[in-house]
Amino acid sequence: MQAAPDKSSRLIYAADLAGTTVFAFEGALAGIAGHLDLFGVLVLGFATALGGGIIRDVLIGAVPPQALRDWRYATIAFGAGALAFLLHSLAQHIPFWLIVTLDAAGLTLFAIAGTEKALAFGLSPLIATLLGTVTGVGGGTLRDVLLAQIPVILRVDIYATAALAGSAVMVAGRALGLPRPLSVAAGGLLCFALRMVSVWQHWQLPVATP
Amino acid sequence: MQAAPDKSSRLIYAADLAGTTVFAFEGALAGIAGHLDLFGVLVLGFATALGGGIIRDVLIGAVPPQALRDWRYATIAFGAGALAFLLHSLAQHIPFWLIVTLDAAGLTLFAIAGTEKALAFGLSPLIATLLGTVTGVGGGTLRDVLLAQIPVILRVDIYATAALAGSAVMVAGRALGLPRPLSVAAGGLLCFALRMVSVWQHWQLPVATP
Amino acid sequence: MQAAPDKSSRLIYAADLAGTTVFAFEGALAGIAGHLDLFGVLVLGFATALGGGIIRDVLIGAVPPQALRDWRYATIAFGAGALAFLLHSLAQHIPFWLIVTLDAAGLTLFAIAGTEKALAFGLSPLIATLLGTVTGVGGGTLRDVLLAQIPVILRVDIYATAALAGSAVMVAGRALGLPRPLSVAAGGLLCFALRMVSVWQHWQLPVATP
Repeated sequence: MQAAPDKSSRLIYAADLAGTTVFAFEGALAGIAGHLDLFGVLVLGFATALGGGIIRDVLIGAVPPQALRDWRYATIAFGAGALAFLLHSLAQHIPFWLIVTLDAAGLTLFAIAGTEKALAFGLSPLIATLLGTVTGVGGGTLRDVLLAQIPVILRVDIYATAALAGSAVMVAGRALGLPRPLSVAAGGLLCFALRMVSVWQHWQLPVATP
Repeated sequence: MQAAPDKSSRLIYAADLAGTTVFAFEGALAGIAGHLDLFGVLVLGFATALGGGIIRDVLIGAVPPQALRDWRYATIAFGAGALAFLLHSLAQHIPFWLIVTLDAAGLTLFAIAGTEKALAFGLSPLIATLLGTVTGVGGGTLRDVLLAQIPVILRVDIYATAALAGSAVMVAGRALGLPRPLSVAAGGLLCFALRMVSVWQHWQLPVATP
Repeated sequence: MQAAPDKSSRLIYAADLAGTTVFAFEGALAGIAGHLDLFGVLVLGFATALGGGIIRDVLIGAVPPQALRDWRYATIAFGAGALAFLLHSLAQHIPFWLIVTLDAAGLTLFAIAGTEKALAFGLSPLIATLLGTVTGVGGGTLRDVLLAQIPVILRVDIYATAALAGSAVMVAGRALGLPRPLSVAAGGLLCFALRMVSVWQHWQLPVATP
């Protein structure tokens, strides 16, 4: 199944590696906050950065997953995790807005790459949208499960919803026959903007009062 | 691998969609009780309804899983989840016995469909029985993991055991050369009856006192 | 993909079944300590013993996983789990050092078998090392997730690190063209010795103070 067409351009590949760096760094910091040891911190960085793509690839049958076939992903994830372990006391001084912005960029890159791959495998629009979202938020979900916590994306914030909206726009653009760069740009912009504005405006999804 | 023979009749397909509706509704209610937001409630409904079948399909190599290839499953799961979100205050008035009965019916339908599929893939009797059980209870297990709780099927009630017994009867019937409708009926009846009687009689499995 | 060459010798196969017995017994005891019922105890034994290999096989596309294709694995896992359920009060009298030694042996056997399989599938050295480690510690991780706890391998002890070191030595030996028995022996010995000495000397990995 590895022979399936990989339409990801070099740009998306570079973006994917950049997103991996950001998510691994963040995941490793979450592991440090959870009192994990060095091995646990590296695993949490790896899982946060690559879990979403691995789940996507297992579900569409693209095994071994890209994150395990290309050694660059694991190397970058462990490198970023080790850096977080060494520099975690400095990490407290990173401005909140920089973290939010880099994270929103990572989410956008992963959602775009995941949607592109699902479309390349010929999946239906609904499922391609879901898999784009899973690529964006699956790693964070795995991180929270490993920390024995309810995944944060299921409880608060416009996060998965931003990935879902961006992915849906990409899929709709493809269905409408728009040029691929245009639909990628529109979907990515929506995802990034929706995430940033929702943090700024403290938007939340509705909660049912039990 | 999608070319593997799908022997599920139209009846089993309809039953599968009906079970999806019940389980998604229940899973969404569990998400509401866990204070999740709208996205989380929909994810919990989806995971509860389709998680078991997805795990089964990934394990036997039938990827993308049926629940991702046929858009009806996701649509029904999200629809039932949204309904639960809107009507959750009414859901408190649903009689306990109606919930138990519908849930037992869903469990039975999923266990039957899962066992049939495992047998169609030529797996051994023991493994077909296990995969039938996984199809019935995998979604509820995933739901509890996402809620950061020990899965309820591992702690109390005759639930997975009912699915296991029904699945084993189906597999035995097949091995003995009984007509397929007969072994499906016998297995399904046993699963449903065992679950209902165990709730009525407060049956529990033994627990070892540590 | 089942046609991939299985280079595991009869010795490794026997070792694999022995490791399954030890891990299933230990996993079942963890389930008893977690107040699970009989079904839950059996599931925990199964997951602890076979979870690592199943995750590895799903990731490399060797589906259905070996643990589901060969009925001996499930039979042994359930048998050892049932034995633990019946004899758990006696299990308290098993000397600590015997448990640690058998567990270290199981870890070593699983890491070796997992690394061999990953190499047989032609994966890169880095990924083969990771998959050997996953085979050794994936089951224990799944056990802890099912018990809604942070996996112990992420927090304390030189455990996964021992598997990682042994697996890395095997992979390096293969890359250097050493005879296979020699690199297997060197990797296995390192894993076992590192685990035993670390328990004896109370070695721990560094933890970052948040």
